[in-house]
Amino acid sequence: MLPIELKEKLIAIVGKENYQDSNASKLVYSFDATPQFQSMPDAIVSPGNTSEISQILKLCNQYRIPIVPRGSGTNLSAGTTPLEGGIVLLFKRLINILEIDEENLTITTQPGVNTQHLIEAVQEKGLFYPPDPSSMKISQIGGNINENSGGLRGLKYGVTRDYVLGLEVVLPNGDIIRTGGKLAKDVAGYDLTRLFVGSEGTLGVITEATLKLLPMPETKKTILALYEDLDAAAKTVSAIISNRIIPATLEFLDQPTLQVVEDFSKIGLPTHVQAVLLIEQDGDPQSVERDIGKIAEICKENHAVEVSVAGSEIEAEALRTARRSALSALARLKPTTILEDATVPRSEVANMVKAINRIAQKYDISICTFGHAGDGNLHPTCMTDARDEEEMKRVEKALQEIFEHAVALGGTITGEHGVGAMKAPYLHLKLGEAGIDAMRGIKQAFDPNNIMNPGKIFAKSDRKRIVVSQR
Amino acid sequence: MLPIELKEKLIAIVGKENYQDSNASKLVYSFDATPQFQSMPDAIVSPGNTSEISQILKLCNQYRIPIVPRGSGTNLSAGTTPLEGGIVLLFKRLINILEIDEENLTITTQPGVNTQHLIEAVQEKGLFYPPDPSSMKISQIGGNINENSGGLRGLKYGVTRDYVLGLEVVLPNGDIIRTGGKLAKDVAGYDLTRLFVGSEGTLGVITEATLKLLPMPETKKTILALYEDLDAAAKTVSAIISNRIIPATLEFLDQPTLQVVEDFSKIGLPTHVQAVLLIEQDGDPQSVERDIGKIAEICKENHAVEVSVAGSEIEAEALRTARRSALSALARLKPTTILEDATVPRSEVANMVKAINRIAQKYDISICTFGHAGDGNLHPTCMTDARDEEEMKRVEKALQEIFEHAVALGGTITGEHGVGAMKAPYLHLKLGEAGIDAMRGIKQAFDPNNIMNPGKIFAKSDRKRIVVSQR
Repeated sequence: MLPIELKEKLIAIVGKENYQDSNASKLVYSFDATPQFQSMPDAIVSPGNTSEISQILKLCNQYRIPIVPRGSGTNLSAGTTPLEGGIVLLFKRLINILEIDEENLTITTQPGVNTQHLIEAVQEKGLFYPPDPSSMKISQIGGNINENSGGLRGLKYGVTRDYVLGLEVVLPNGDIIRTGGKLAKDVAGYDLTRLFVGSEGTLGVITEATLKLLPMPETKKTILALYEDLDAAAKTVSAIISNRIIPATLEFLDQPTLQVVEDFSKIGLPTHVQAVLLIEQDGDPQSVERDIGKIAEICKENHAVEVSVAGSEIEAEALRTARRSALSALARLKPTTILEDATVPRSEVANMVKAINRIAQKYDISICTFGHAGDGNLHPTCMTDARDEEEMKRVEKALQEIFEHAVALGGTITGEHGVGAMKAPYLHLKLGEAGIDAMRGIKQAFDPNNIMNPGKIFAKSDRKRIVVSQR
Repeated sequence: MLPIELKEKLIAIVGKENYQDSNASKLVYSFDATPQFQSMPDAIVSPGNTSEISQILKLCNQYRIPIVPRGSGTNLSAGTTPLEGGIVLLFKRLINILEIDEENLTITTQPGVNTQHLIEAVQEKGLFYPPDPSSMKISQIGGNINENSGGLRGLKYGVTRDYVLGLEVVLPNGDIIRTGGKLAKDVAGYDLTRLFVGSEGTLGVITEATLKLLPMPETKKTILALYEDLDAAAKTVSAIISNRIIPATLEFLDQPTLQVVEDFSKIGLPTHVQAVLLIEQDGDPQSVERDIGKIAEICKENHAVEVSVAGSEIEAEALRTARRSALSALARLKPTTILEDATVPRSEVANMVKAINRIAQKYDISICTFGHAGDGNLHPTCMTDARDEEEMKRVEKALQEIFEHAVALGGTITGEHGVGAMKAPYLHLKLGEAGIDAMRGIKQAFDPNNIMNPGKIFAKSDRKRIVVSQR
């Protein structure tokens, strides 16, 4: 429980209607999309402007109360669970797009704006905000920035980080700083903008962002290529890029994923093959036509058993939506669904897929794999049951082996989900102790009292990873 | 002078032939491309591998001796001058390209590789490394990374930062860390990769880098548009982008710059007009043709008096080379040439050019302006004489006013040259004290003894900027 005078001060800042500490409210914000990390906050505050956030952070710093900034809580790394209690800080009153600047191709927004709403708002002006995390219908742009969210268009267009030009941030001491701006170039000191992107709310609270926009590609086309052989599908991925084509999207789904996604979405996905690639190219009509033709050829050369171009944008959108629903679909299958995020260099996708299947067999567990193959970003997903302790031990061992294998192949423990509390025990695999020490130094410099989202990124113990989703 | 036992230890690490402390050697490395900051180092060391660099940094940390990592010293912000003495650390033995990976589209390189050599090496394989600083014929890739160098292709392709995927870095305490990798996505903790890019050698020594490559655009075309009116040229810049076209290059040169560049390069540049835009588009032939057609139209609509498409790649290359030689050309004109780097949102280029001319008139000094107009990145350049103290005072006042104006327009004090020692007194204009404090915290965390390139980025006093180039 918060000290009573702190509660009074917080209410004085945000108003009574924007302070909650009922049990019901606390329960709502005790978890994010990563259920097994449930932990109760002491209160939930919804500030209405930067000045209020600055006052809140000063207070919390003084009282040493944890602050967990939270968008819609769709992250899959236990990045927004109030593990050490304290205050959950919501962006729900900061939901305005402040400006779409068509001359500088930028959008300036508050953090609580819904991602899909933002994408549609710029689309109306013929502009394009590429990052499209699977959760975009629910997620908030501030959460995307905190997590450096990826998405299906990452291969050609990069991730959230590549679109953040400037930020307003409240630091733990209450200082308000502005980084970058509507600027294509800015080298005035260290790159604070990109340091805050993906810092998972551990360094400060982002209160405003200026994002880069692109002209909307004129057209796009989607291909579905079917394979009787996982390896052939994975090899196609490398072959496309080696042929100097960078598709906008290059997704991989294996048979078990296909099956459950089709059961869920019922759009007529093939479920008799071992794997599919969902490939999309965008741009001007001639280039798209040419690239799609070449890609189809490369798929066939690499033993695709069938290659079909989506007949309409409606059909293509259905395919994309089906792909985005993979987690929801898989989560229906077994009581516990562990969605992982292991990323390797693109050339190692075939090896990684083989290793995942070998490891699954070794530990006698059920893993299906899908993901952003063009980015080397795979989501091996384990369907299990958390109540079966013996199986869970095998699952844990298997996942650890998958991470170790990813890193051994030149990869990383998380390509787009973040570290949060869930991956913290594995961070040393990627960074070594010296790398973690360097990051701890930054954390200490910004937040010496460790009030900002404590327990995230940096592991306290060797606590193992926990399941993502449970029925 | 270094303590004698330190000298002996350094020689034991790098070998006698890679340690220099003769007066002649020290003189050579007492300045970079920013002459008025000359200051003598105590020694120059040229390590041959990462382990040697680690040993050197440990020693220097122990003895509290400054280390200045230095590529070719082409920076224009006094970023590599040994202001507090100590050791200049050269990359000249670290000149190998370690791998060009055509499947992952990456190049892994040591820091001492010449930028142009790197660009040509990947070009031979049909690949493209876009960052092209004007100094690329001389500069080293390690220096480019330290400075986050820009270039002529920044508008469409971004700057050095956008191509650095992974680094090996030796920290001031001797720790060797590896960040990122051949990975399109990696969110394992804070973005150390981008923190090191542009950190001007103040946080550690970069010993290896993995850079992203693109497929080489099939073709490119170049337009030269002539204007009798500066404002019309500046407005064309915004109009092109507002029309949803992102050219690869969009350069601006005013009449005085044109005149001196033509005198220097003798390629037949028009010298009778007030300004030119040099515009390039690349991509597949149809898109380039279409974009170039539209761009030509937009130029005419915005009152270009002549618009011509370069007849051949040789002609286009001559134009680019002429543009890259602007600094060398201008430096011949008067004893002292002050090349500045003020950047504004693209939509403010017209206002900024007008302000520069108004400020030049107000202080009765001669400024000509060129730069990467598409990026809003202008290089107002003052031809003066450092021996004329009275004029220099006016120059200083004028430049300060230019920076203040750039920031007031939503711009920055440096778009691509870095802060170094030269811009340090102005950093607060962009960042405020809270922003500088946040950066100081990072510096302190990495380098508590301040051995890495001391005197850069952070101002000791309110020392004013100094001239760039003197005949």
